[in-house]
Amino acid sequence: MNFKINKKELLDALNISSKAVSSTTPLPTLSGIKFEIKNDHINLISSDSNISILIVLDNKEKEILTVEQEGEIVIDSKYILEIVRKTDGDIINFETLDGDYIKIFGINSEYKINGMSGNDYPTIAFNDIESATNKFVLSGAEFFNIVNQTIFACSQSGIKVALTGVNFKAENGILEVKASDSYRLAFKKIQLADEYKELNFNFTIPAKYLGDITHSVSLAQNITITFDNQKVDFSFSNINIQTRLIDDVFPDASKLISNTYTQKVLINSKELLNAIDRTSFIKSEGKNIIKMDINNDSILITSNDQISSSFEKLPIISFEGEPIEVSCSGKYLIDAVKALDCEETCLTFSGNLKPFIVKNENDDSLIQIISPVRTYK
Amino acid sequence: MNFKINKKELLDALNISSKAVSSTTPLPTLSGIKFEIKNDHINLISSDSNISILIVLDNKEKEILTVEQEGEIVIDSKYILEIVRKTDGDIINFETLDGDYIKIFGINSEYKINGMSGNDYPTIAFNDIESATNKFVLSGAEFFNIVNQTIFACSQSGIKVALTGVNFKAENGILEVKASDSYRLAFKKIQLADEYKELNFNFTIPAKYLGDITHSVSLAQNITITFDNQKVDFSFSNINIQTRLIDDVFPDASKLISNTYTQKVLINSKELLNAIDRTSFIKSEGKNIIKMDINNDSILITSNDQISSSFEKLPIISFEGEPIEVSCSGKYLIDAVKALDCEETCLTFSGNLKPFIVKNENDDSLIQIISPVRTYK
Repeated sequence: MNFKINKKELLDALNISSKAVSSTTPLPTLSGIKFEIKNDHINLISSDSNISILIVLDNKEKEILTVEQEGEIVIDSKYILEIVRKTDGDIINFETLDGDYIKIFGINSEYKINGMSGNDYPTIAFNDIESATNKFVLSGAEFFNIVNQTIFACSQSGIKVALTGVNFKAENGILEVKASDSYRLAFKKIQLADEYKELNFNFTIPAKYLGDITHSVSLAQNITITFDNQKVDFSFSNINIQTRLIDDVFPDASKLISNTYTQKVLINSKELLNAIDRTSFIKSEGKNIIKMDINNDSILITSNDQISSSFEKLPIISFEGEPIEVSCSGKYLIDAVKALDCEETCLTFSGNLKPFIVKNENDDSLIQIISPVRTYK
Repeated sequence: MNFKINKKELLDALNISSKAVSSTTPLPTLSGIKFEIKNDHINLISSDSNISILIVLDNKEKEILTVEQEGEIVIDSKYILEIVRKTDGDIINFETLDGDYIKIFGINSEYKINGMSGNDYPTIAFNDIESATNKFVLSGAEFFNIVNQTIFACSQSGIKVALTGVNFKAENGILEVKASDSYRLAFKKIQLADEYKELNFNFTIPAKYLGDITHSVSLAQNITITFDNQKVDFSFSNINIQTRLIDDVFPDASKLISNTYTQKVLINSKELLNAIDRTSFIKSEGKNIIKMDINNDSILITSNDQISSSFEKLPIISFEGEPIEVSCSGKYLIDAVKALDCEETCLTFSGNLKPFIVKNENDDSLIQIISPVRTYK
C-alpha cells in the first residue's frame, strides 16, 4: 500500500465515516475504518453493524489522489482521525512499512501506526443503486425537512420498539412519514414524483441512525433511497449510508386525524412559543405542564409547581366554539409549533381530554397531534 | 417588601451571586439568594459556606431601583434566575403577597413564588474594606494575569491539601504567587505598590474559588484584597467576594529555582506548541509523554503508545551545552509555554532527570518548572 491524498478531502470523508464506527464492539476491526486502496479510487468503509457507511474517494471531480500501490488496511478510527487532522501540509502520504504497520506523514510530522488486516473486516453488502428496483429519489432539502418535522416525536423510552423509529409509507404515489411516542404524533405527507406511482412500501427507520444520516444529507442535491425488507440505503454524491430497519409494525394512526372539531383557535406562533418558554422552568414531576384557558379574546397560560406559579395572557387572532380549558406538555406544544415553522398556528380541539391538532391553517401536508393531560386543581 | 428594579442590572448581579449558591446544602436557605431591601439599596447575599458574595445595587451610578417598602427574603437561586431572565419588559416588580409568598411581574408575564424567611439565613461577616488594615490593591488586569499564569499548575487530586490552592506570599514589598502539583511549579513575582512595603502575609486560596473570582474580576479597574487568618475578601465595584483560606502550610519551593544550568535552548513558542499538540492524542496510560532529543540544530519530539508513534523535527533558535534527552508530560509543557505567552521560549536543564525551567529569556517575573519523567525504550 502506498498512496497520497488531499488532506481536507480525506478528513471530510473520515469525519462522516467515523459516525458509523462502533465504540463498544466485540469485533476489533469494527472500531476502525477500512481503507480499500484500488488503482483509481479508495473505498472508506465503516460500520457498527446497525449503520454502515461507504465513501468513495476518486479523481472524477478533482485531482485528489495518487495511488502507487494498491492494498487494504483497517485503522482505528480515533487514531486515523487525529493523525489526519494533525499532520501538517495539504497532502498526506500513506506507506506500508511491514505488513499492517504503516507510516503516515506530511511535511515535518510523521506517524507510525499498527493497523489491522483488511481480511478481518466483515463484508457489508451495500445496495447497488443502478440495479435496484425498490428505490426512489428525494431532494436533499426535502428529505432534511421531512425528517426534522417528524423525528422529534419519536419515543425516547424504547418500550414500543416501532415507536423508536420514523415510519415511511408509500401508496398511490403519496409518501406518508410518521413519528409518535404514543402521546403525540407528527405526520407529514408529500407527493412522490410520477415515476414512483407504483411503488408501495412501509418501513420504519431507527430514529437514532436517521438523525445521523440527516446531518450528512442536508447539503446533497439529490438522495436516492433503495430498500429491501431488512435495510435501507441512502446514496448521495460519493456516499452510501445503510441502516437496518425496525422489525416491528408501526401502529395505524389514521383514526387520530379528524377533520371535525368543536373549537378552533388561531394564534401568533412566536408569541405562543415565547409564552410557553417563559414557563418552561416550572416543572412538576420533571414535566412542564401548561394549562390553556381559551376564550374569545385570549389564552391564559398557567403553569405550577410546588413553590411557584406562572401566568401569561396571550391575545388570539380568531376563535370558534365555546371556551375550553386544556392542559398539555409545554415541551410538546413548543416542538409542534417549531416544526410547523409558520407565522400563525392553528389549534383545533374536540374536547378537553381528546387529542388536539396543531397545524398551519392553510397546509394539510404537516399535522402535529398532541394528547392533553389531566390536571388537578 | 415592594420594589421595582432594572431587569438587566438585577440579572447581571444574580448571575454573579448564583456562583456562590450551594446546590447540596443541609441548610435550605443556602440554596437561595438573600435579598435585603433597604430604603436606598438592595444587598444580594449568597454563600455556600466556603465562598460568599455580597452585591450592592443602588442608584449611585444610575437610576435602577425604586423601593416602596423595605423587607428581606431568600429566593431559591434557580427559580429567581429563570424568572428574572424570562420576565418580559425592562423593569421587574417585586411585591409581597402574604408573608414570604411574593409576586414578581413584568408586562404580560407574572410569577408567584414561595420564598424563605430572611431570618433563617446565616449571618456572614464580610470585611469592612475601609477599616481593614490587612489589605492591598491590585489592578483587575494584573490580578487576572497573576492567577491565570499560575492556577493551572494546582493539584487536581487533593491528596496534599495545600497544593489544591494558589499561594500568595508577601515580604519586603514583593508578592510571590505559587501553584504546584508536586510535578510542576508555576511561580510569579511582582512588586507591590510602595505603601504595602510593610505588609507581610502568606496565605493559600482554594483554586476552585479563586477561578470563579477571577472570571468576575477581569473587567474591574481595581481590586482591594483584605484578609485575616481564615478568609480573604476581594472587593471591586459593587461586589465583595469572600473565600475561606486553606488551613495548611504551602511547601517551600525556593530550592527548585536555580540560576545555573548545563543546557539552554531557545525555541519558537508557536512551533513548539504545534508540535506537541500534534502528538497530544497519543496517550500511554492516559498521559501524553513526549521525549525531546535536543542537540545543536534541532529538537526531535517523539511520542509513543501501544499502537502508534509520532515524530516531529523542530528547528531551534540557539543551544548551549551537550546534547540532552528529556521526557516530560506534553500537557505540562503546553500549559507552561501558554502561560508565558512570549514569542520565544527558553528551556534550561541541569540533567535529564532534574526539574527543568521554562521561561521568557528576558523576564524573571514568571518561571515555570517541570519535573521530567523516566521513560523506558
